[in-house]
Amino acid sequence: MKEDLPLSRDAVSAYRDTALRLVSEAGDVVARRLAGSFSARKKPDKSFVTDVDLEVEQLIRDRISAVYPEHGVLGEEYGALRPESPFQWVIDPIDGTLSLRNRIPLFGTILALLYRNEPVVGVIMLPELGRTYHAARGAGAWRGSERIVIQDVPDESGLPDEVIGISDRHQFIVAGRTDVFDRLMLRHPRMRTYTDCFGHALAVDGSLGAMIDFDLNVWDAAATQVLIEEAGGRYVRLPPDAERPAKYNLVFGKPRVVQWLLEQLDGKE
Amino acid sequence: MKEDLPLSRDAVSAYRDTALRLVSEAGDVVARRLAGSFSARKKPDKSFVTDVDLEVEQLIRDRISAVYPEHGVLGEEYGALRPESPFQWVIDPIDGTLSLRNRIPLFGTILALLYRNEPVVGVIMLPELGRTYHAARGAGAWRGSERIVIQDVPDESGLPDEVIGISDRHQFIVAGRTDVFDRLMLRHPRMRTYTDCFGHALAVDGSLGAMIDFDLNVWDAAATQVLIEEAGGRYVRLPPDAERPAKYNLVFGKPRVVQWLLEQLDGKE
Repeated sequence: MKEDLPLSRDAVSAYRDTALRLVSEAGDVVARRLAGSFSARKKPDKSFVTDVDLEVEQLIRDRISAVYPEHGVLGEEYGALRPESPFQWVIDPIDGTLSLRNRIPLFGTILALLYRNEPVVGVIMLPELGRTYHAARGAGAWRGSERIVIQDVPDESGLPDEVIGISDRHQFIVAGRTDVFDRLMLRHPRMRTYTDCFGHALAVDGSLGAMIDFDLNVWDAAATQVLIEEAGGRYVRLPPDAERPAKYNLVFGKPRVVQWLLEQLDGKE
Repeated sequence: MKEDLPLSRDAVSAYRDTALRLVSEAGDVVARRLAGSFSARKKPDKSFVTDVDLEVEQLIRDRISAVYPEHGVLGEEYGALRPESPFQWVIDPIDGTLSLRNRIPLFGTILALLYRNEPVVGVIMLPELGRTYHAARGAGAWRGSERIVIQDVPDESGLPDEVIGISDRHQFIVAGRTDVFDRLMLRHPRMRTYTDCFGHALAVDGSLGAMIDFDLNVWDAAATQVLIEEAGGRYVRLPPDAERPAKYNLVFGKPRVVQWLLEQLDGKE
């Protein structure tokens, strides 16, 4: 494929199929490790990493390098490989490592492909729920073999019965934006801390009205962008904070719920 | 069995086996209904009820009346039957109906048996996770065929890495105790709104350090008491509010985490 041409839908679908095969292998690793024991330790940023994170990322990196030796790979644990390629696979081998460590079954593996910095394939695999969400540009968003089409709320009267996802307050402490977390908790009694890719996946299939998640990295955000947009939802990256320009502060989900969340962010009481 | 004797362990285990059979049947109903459509509507208290709640409760009531025609039954949706019996089965057919309505996979069925007002059997079944937690007095707490023994945190230094469950702020609004919710959110950055029996189950198997849940009914609380105590955890019912004397305000989980939560409740800053 010439790199100066846009990707064909068939090409993108083929990359999506590769991504699905890789996360399926990742799921086998996770299942095997969950059945036994694994060790967790803290990284310099105080977040946890486990043997499982490392094994899954190494597996996916190896497979991508074997299948697409010219593609770049960027993972949470092992950094960047071939960063000059227009194709970049981004990996969060275990998104929700604190949950994995505590055996809370709401963690997952995220894999996305960026072409010229635009996400074109996104996969979220939740091993303990037996669910895989996947999307490719132009080919729709799917949960397994079921097409996902987000239904917006008809009007604002539906908002109180929408559950809205939000990450741990800890995430907003790190981002220096506890004001956002605290204000939203007061304004919507059904805010729930469905953290990590579990919350993202529930927003993709409309179980959540929307989700707001701050201080993410590209490997946490890219898959969600493809999934939400292909499902017909709205994905908004807020202007990055000047001191943390690489971080993603996101609001995504049903358009009217996203709009309501955006209106709460200006701080007006 | 003579009603003036304490129950034997064998008798309690037999009741537990019956309970497991009934929630398994309930799981089949839920799976069938989830594969299709069901209707949800609001009850006078503004909470949701669905066809699934009603079908599951009717099924369990019918089965109990057939097997133990002298036992009482108290369910969330259909009220009390034979309330004079020393044996009372309490049912929450779908705990987490808002989640079920929104197809958030964190709802479940709760069934417990009280003998002279003391819970002796408790079962929580989470159909979308494929998990069933069960306990009988003197026979331990189990997740499926795996015995559960709660490991306490060794000391307070472990607290920051413990995830603590809490119900929606909505629940604390109803209970008139938003002060508790808001204070805990500020004091522990890993409070998560893992509502309903999903949070209870995670506290039982030690994935959560503890859970705090307010404004419950007996059918939400009784199974948890047996499960937590048989797993070696601590279960505390706070003194009921004078205006809502039948409601249960609970703190349960690993003893040191429960103790920490109790110390936060006095309102001292």
